[in-house]
Amino acid sequence: MGRLAMNTTLRVNGMTCGHCVTAVTEELSALDGVQSVAVDLVAGGASTVTVASDAPLPDDAVRAAIDEAGYELADD
Amino acid sequence: MGRLAMNTTLRVNGMTCGHCVTAVTEELSALDGVQSVAVDLVAGGASTVTVASDAPLPDDAVRAAIDEAGYELADD
Repeated sequence: MGRLAMNTTLRVNGMTCGHCVTAVTEELSALDGVQSVAVDLVAGGASTVTVASDAPLPDDAVRAAIDEAGYELADD
Repeated sequence: MGRLAMNTTLRVNGMTCGHCVTAVTEELSALDGVQSVAVDLVAGGASTVTVASDAPLPDDAVRAAIDEAGYELADD
């Protein structure tokens, strides 16, 4: 039986290449309850990051993970 | 007494961020006789990479290092 997941969609500034995708994916994947991370890279703007998790992710944990990777959430 | 160095200047396509700088710097630094690597990152075009070395660097070794890092020399 598969696990149920909820999806959280983030918009992240400053990601430009595959290394950036790896850095963000690794930090978010380390959060409690995260099942998967998918990134739609937009090098010249905000990239869309979709996180599937067992339960809602705390905003501050998500923000800290993005910051730790070296990027920031887009304002909107 | 300092070591004498010669400088080789490369133009490298596809580098967009600090991770790219790290990857290229690491690969070039691993070549025999390389003393230092400096990168002037141009995210939208060819970045300039200056390598200081004890002796002339073989073209094929330089090309292989850039390829290993995941980038390519600019054509010119």
